[in-house]
Amino acid sequence: MKNTFGNQVSLTIFGESHGPAIGAVLDGLAAGLPVDEAHIARWMDRRRARGDGLSTSRKEPDTVRFLSGVYNGRTTGTALTLMIENTAQRSGDYAKTAGLARPGHADYTAHVKYQGFEDFRGGGHFSGRLTAPLVAAGALCQSILAAKGVRIGTHLYRLAGLDDQPFAGGEEKLAAQLAALEEREGFALLDPSREEAMKAAVRSAAAEGDSVGGILETAVLGLPAGAGEPFFDSAESVLSHLLFSIPAVKGVEFGDGFALADQKGSGANDPLAVQGGRVVTLTNHNGGINGGITNGMPLVFRAAYKPTPSIYKAQHTVNLASLTEAELQIQGRHDPAIVPRAAVVQTAAAAFGLLDLLTARFGTLWQREGF
Amino acid sequence: MKNTFGNQVSLTIFGESHGPAIGAVLDGLAAGLPVDEAHIARWMDRRRARGDGLSTSRKEPDTVRFLSGVYNGRTTGTALTLMIENTAQRSGDYAKTAGLARPGHADYTAHVKYQGFEDFRGGGHFSGRLTAPLVAAGALCQSILAAKGVRIGTHLYRLAGLDDQPFAGGEEKLAAQLAALEEREGFALLDPSREEAMKAAVRSAAAEGDSVGGILETAVLGLPAGAGEPFFDSAESVLSHLLFSIPAVKGVEFGDGFALADQKGSGANDPLAVQGGRVVTLTNHNGGINGGITNGMPLVFRAAYKPTPSIYKAQHTVNLASLTEAELQIQGRHDPAIVPRAAVVQTAAAAFGLLDLLTARFGTLWQREGF
Amino acid sequence: MKNTFGNQVSLTIFGESHGPAIGAVLDGLAAGLPVDEAHIARWMDRRRARGDGLSTSRKEPDTVRFLSGVYNGRTTGTALTLMIENTAQRSGDYAKTAGLARPGHADYTAHVKYQGFEDFRGGGHFSGRLTAPLVAAGALCQSILAAKGVRIGTHLYRLAGLDDQPFAGGEEKLAAQLAALEEREGFALLDPSREEAMKAAVRSAAAEGDSVGGILETAVLGLPAGAGEPFFDSAESVLSHLLFSIPAVKGVEFGDGFALADQKGSGANDPLAVQGGRVVTLTNHNGGINGGITNGMPLVFRAAYKPTPSIYKAQHTVNLASLTEAELQIQGRHDPAIVPRAAVVQTAAAAFGLLDLLTARFGTLWQREGF
Amino acid sequence: MKNTFGNQVSLTIFGESHGPAIGAVLDGLAAGLPVDEAHIARWMDRRRARGDGLSTSRKEPDTVRFLSGVYNGRTTGTALTLMIENTAQRSGDYAKTAGLARPGHADYTAHVKYQGFEDFRGGGHFSGRLTAPLVAAGALCQSILAAKGVRIGTHLYRLAGLDDQPFAGGEEKLAAQLAALEEREGFALLDPSREEAMKAAVRSAAAEGDSVGGILETAVLGLPAGAGEPFFDSAESVLSHLLFSIPAVKGVEFGDGFALADQKGSGANDPLAVQGGRVVTLTNHNGGINGGITNGMPLVFRAAYKPTPSIYKAQHTVNLASLTEAELQIQGRHDPAIVPRAAVVQTAAAAFGLLDLLTARFGTLWQREGF
Repeated sequence: MKNTFGNQVSLTIFGESHGPAIGAVLDGLAAGLPVDEAHIARWMDRRRARGDGLSTSRKEPDTVRFLSGVYNGRTTGTALTLMIENTAQRSGDYAKTAGLARPGHADYTAHVKYQGFEDFRGGGHFSGRLTAPLVAAGALCQSILAAKGVRIGTHLYRLAGLDDQPFAGGEEKLAAQLAALEEREGFALLDPSREEAMKAAVRSAAAEGDSVGGILETAVLGLPAGAGEPFFDSAESVLSHLLFSIPAVKGVEFGDGFALADQKGSGANDPLAVQGGRVVTLTNHNGGINGGITNGMPLVFRAAYKPTPSIYKAQHTVNLASLTEAELQIQGRHDPAIVPRAAVVQTAAAAFGLLDLLTARFGTLWQREGF
Repeated sequence: MKNTFGNQVSLTIFGESHGPAIGAVLDGLAAGLPVDEAHIARWMDRRRARGDGLSTSRKEPDTVRFLSGVYNGRTTGTALTLMIENTAQRSGDYAKTAGLARPGHADYTAHVKYQGFEDFRGGGHFSGRLTAPLVAAGALCQSILAAKGVRIGTHLYRLAGLDDQPFAGGEEKLAAQLAALEEREGFALLDPSREEAMKAAVRSAAAEGDSVGGILETAVLGLPAGAGEPFFDSAESVLSHLLFSIPAVKGVEFGDGFALADQKGSGANDPLAVQGGRVVTLTNHNGGINGGITNGMPLVFRAAYKPTPSIYKAQHTVNLASLTEAELQIQGRHDPAIVPRAAVVQTAAAAFGLLDLLTARFGTLWQREGF
Repeated sequence: MKNTFGNQVSLTIFGESHGPAIGAVLDGLAAGLPVDEAHIARWMDRRRARGDGLSTSRKEPDTVRFLSGVYNGRTTGTALTLMIENTAQRSGDYAKTAGLARPGHADYTAHVKYQGFEDFRGGGHFSGRLTAPLVAAGALCQSILAAKGVRIGTHLYRLAGLDDQPFAGGEEKLAAQLAALEEREGFALLDPSREEAMKAAVRSAAAEGDSVGGILETAVLGLPAGAGEPFFDSAESVLSHLLFSIPAVKGVEFGDGFALADQKGSGANDPLAVQGGRVVTLTNHNGGINGGITNGMPLVFRAAYKPTPSIYKAQHTVNLASLTEAELQIQGRHDPAIVPRAAVVQTAAAAFGLLDLLTARFGTLWQREGF
Repeated sequence: MKNTFGNQVSLTIFGESHGPAIGAVLDGLAAGLPVDEAHIARWMDRRRARGDGLSTSRKEPDTVRFLSGVYNGRTTGTALTLMIENTAQRSGDYAKTAGLARPGHADYTAHVKYQGFEDFRGGGHFSGRLTAPLVAAGALCQSILAAKGVRIGTHLYRLAGLDDQPFAGGEEKLAAQLAALEEREGFALLDPSREEAMKAAVRSAAAEGDSVGGILETAVLGLPAGAGEPFFDSAESVLSHLLFSIPAVKGVEFGDGFALADQKGSGANDPLAVQGGRVVTLTNHNGGINGGITNGMPLVFRAAYKPTPSIYKAQHTVNLASLTEAELQIQGRHDPAIVPRAAVVQTAAAAFGLLDLLTARFGTLWQREGF
């Protein structure tokens, strides 16, 4: 339903990049859950631009203000609303190119859909800024899952054509990788020795006035088997719905994903076994999901992000006011690589989606068990 | 919401492989739309097993019976219910392996989720048979879109490691390809000369008791710009939600998809231009969608299907009743390649999802304009 | 969403009075719940016409056939579909008045909404027959609630201007009343001595070619406090949404309802007390709901049913084809009093709505606890 | 879905009486609709307490701040968020009675539902204050309907046991009544000569430390026939769902409502006729709705409001912390009659519900036609 998603736990996202504020309403939480503002601020910080030559120099404090649903540091069980004021807009930068649709952006499609009444400044409702409230809400969802032993992490699987080390197959080693990821701020690599090469590749593209894309991989450990509601609300369906809401995502795959298309059944099926009284699979080609339902093994998925469409190279485009062709020279502050900042967004989306599916199964009150 | 999806046009899918019937309720159609039963039967036929060594020898007539919502060959505007009786079950085949979870299937996850009460016969609710009512409903949705000049088609982009020719970039040539696809029944290739090689590769895997996967590519031509409802109901989100409901789909990508991750912005952005008074893009790396909204160019996406999990090779697994390990030798009738039959399923899912998005924008009554 | 209602447990109703079948899809049930077909048949029988001069002489066997979601007599946890074939149509009766809108019916509004393509026979989608699948689904929901100690019953609070005895205020006496109601078939009075007078009043109206209305009152005992999801999904909102879906309902009130409008606060507030370690109210003017959430006291509500619109007196109306005025003389079989048959429908609607609200709070798996 | 309602146009309400802010997200509006802040402020003013002895002396400026979805005074087509800061809380008043459940309020039910973590101050999420964002959103919806010739108004049908003049049956006279109502601020009577007697009755109850209830009647003129989506989303169902979300509403009826229960069919059916080429009904007992679908005649409904539960008389209740019985003496500022202030709330709820139903039929773009 447009800007609201979720059944038992639902999230409504609102705002425009240069409007007064962006925010979210998170509904369906149990009462009495601790709202750790420092934890949320840490997640907001990971999404924040760093001014390190990789991301835009627009710096927003991104302070999350709770308008409802929190009392004495805990959820009240009613709709939780969070708001982030927009404070660092430099709309003047955009006025210069107003009317010229930026290729790869939503400028033209928003113009058609909203018939010229869209708030085009800074991408409006289509700005990556809209992921900030998703991160805040997701941080809260993740803390609920964490209290139940569920761990989630996302790393830079691939950036500017360079790979990180992959997630480990074994649960023990994966747990260590996820723990290490939680310590890292802003450039989420499993193998930190690859950071400099990646950053150099980004800076090289930036120097040409260009931008790069990449792939983010998420793993979830400790998830109960049984989450997912086929036919339509398979775990993959719910998560992909959320992932494709993140601006720039153009592909999503679970487990071995597209590589499975070239496999034979004997190579794609995960043999089952019993270990410590628990049913496990000996491989995890299916990424922890069978038939749309989690199987208790690590949930693993990847999303492909196209390169930031805002580049400084001249581009051929159309003036939407006059319907004539024109050359566009983008000004303003833009990330040559949005992917590192998107890691925490992807984690947040997963945390929210999984909390919704688990709440459907176990009920709202379950969220608070253990706190 | 579990077995129901869609806002303005909604679809409820029900049934189990070996239960009395499978079916669907399609709600939100305008009144007065022609229900062309022969057209629907043609689509059902494309999904049907052919007994040609590529697909299961279980042959269902798959006759669609309309229980409601149709009167004198036209929609009444109320909920349209279609039912397909299950007639060709051979449940005995499954009794032999009852208790043994088939690797790659939903046997184990369904067992956990439904606590042993699931109808496991033939995969139950998780059987590919559940896509039959989706095809029938999608055929009807497609006929509504077709009356408005929207054309949809899906081809075997890749099967058993072999590629078809890709969709053409230009709209005129693409139109010809889609027209040709509509003529083909059951093995949807843009380049029919590759059919024999592909079939040989499938038969070779089948001869080893194994199965193959593949990739299906869909193109939609003539779609109005402006469909899609971000933040959450982006066109990609809605379509991927539906695609990941199709059993065996493990990856979905739009436009250049995962390949965009390795691109630079200058290579990923589609320059805009004016042609015949209409705004177009000169390339289509974004697959007809920007910011989650259709841009009027061809919508192009691909879904990766893992190989059929039912193979005749012996597999290591777990007896769910005794929680002991066991060897599984699958009997029964199974497709070594499900992908050819899934082409029409993918088309159907797209037709339904797009009709829902367009109806949100233009209203229910719009569906009937032109008829 | 049109023909689907409910969040955690959802119900989709389909069918037309003279189409092939009517039915429902009930989704969101736990697996392993017993499906007692005899219990469901008993409820269907209460809704059935009796040919006793009070209700139509059209007799449908109303056999419920389960198409999906049931295996070995228990729910599978997937969408449960039930179908009732239409067998006793006499569409010829309707052909005679085709084109003449029956006053008080949906003939004209359906004609506008569906632009002449509606299945008008027997009221089509607007027939009281559509409540049959609601009863079947509600019977199943009620049996789930009953296993948790929740009791529901509905009586003929008022019919043809005559009152039944009201529900008792005390829980113990109310329990006895509900138990007695379960025994009664077809004419649900708390004081059976009033039956003859009521029936006489109905027959008197019928003799004049007229029909009567009435009020049905429902009580629910043993409901846990805490059900209801304000702001929008208050217990009253959810229940009234369902009640106003029942054809002929034109008013709904909870507790003392409209009479509260004339009260003062001191007379409307229910004092709280502690009894047996449990918080109770000493009166129940609010009908078991405060702030949209159940308070653990008996839930009490009433719905007003207008008289059956099909009467044999001549009526002034419009020919929808020619848009000219005309006199209408209705033929066919019609109930002079639909209200007695609607009692079980109202109970069914309540059972479904409450199961949905309780499942949201306690989770799907909770449904099966105790079985 | 808890705090979100609506299909095509959806409304999310958030906030607590003494939290930082209350507000709403209105989603599904077309772009380009004028947002008349003065009009909205006028509606907010009608809901505002007047300190005239009838309503609480707590005065909130209730300034509506738009956080998103508005640009240059027009809707952008994306989610519109409005926020009203809470500024005049005197939580100290509530601290005195903290722990003592106020009879007739949600104190006890919220305590059970939210397990002691609710924000109890001033009624929290259950305060009548939550209707302020509903009024703001409804004012905007009404202005969209008004541009299409739809007129809505609500009057004090009954207050403290005294009646206003009823709505006129004829459309012309009703139009005059609605126009007159728009002029009146704060005490919406069709016959202003009854104002003093009503106010005296309220003041008399207030003088005893008591409160009064009443009935509000709404009429909608100029509504197209064809709105409403049976089976479940009948016009009555959607409107009653919204009306029962308004705190204190305990009964809802359409047309002649409960009085229809005592009618015969010949007295309840509205004869149809043709006037000026248009199908009309000669009476309007059904309140403009047949079969859950609007028929083009005036839509008329009433909601019963129980008396304000906050009274100054001593009341018997329970201390929720100690689970012991206690006497409660309420302090603070409370309305002896909430009903006059609720008139605009009821109008707002109707405007929102009808806009949603009409948008489903005609599409989002239809909203802007005529602007």
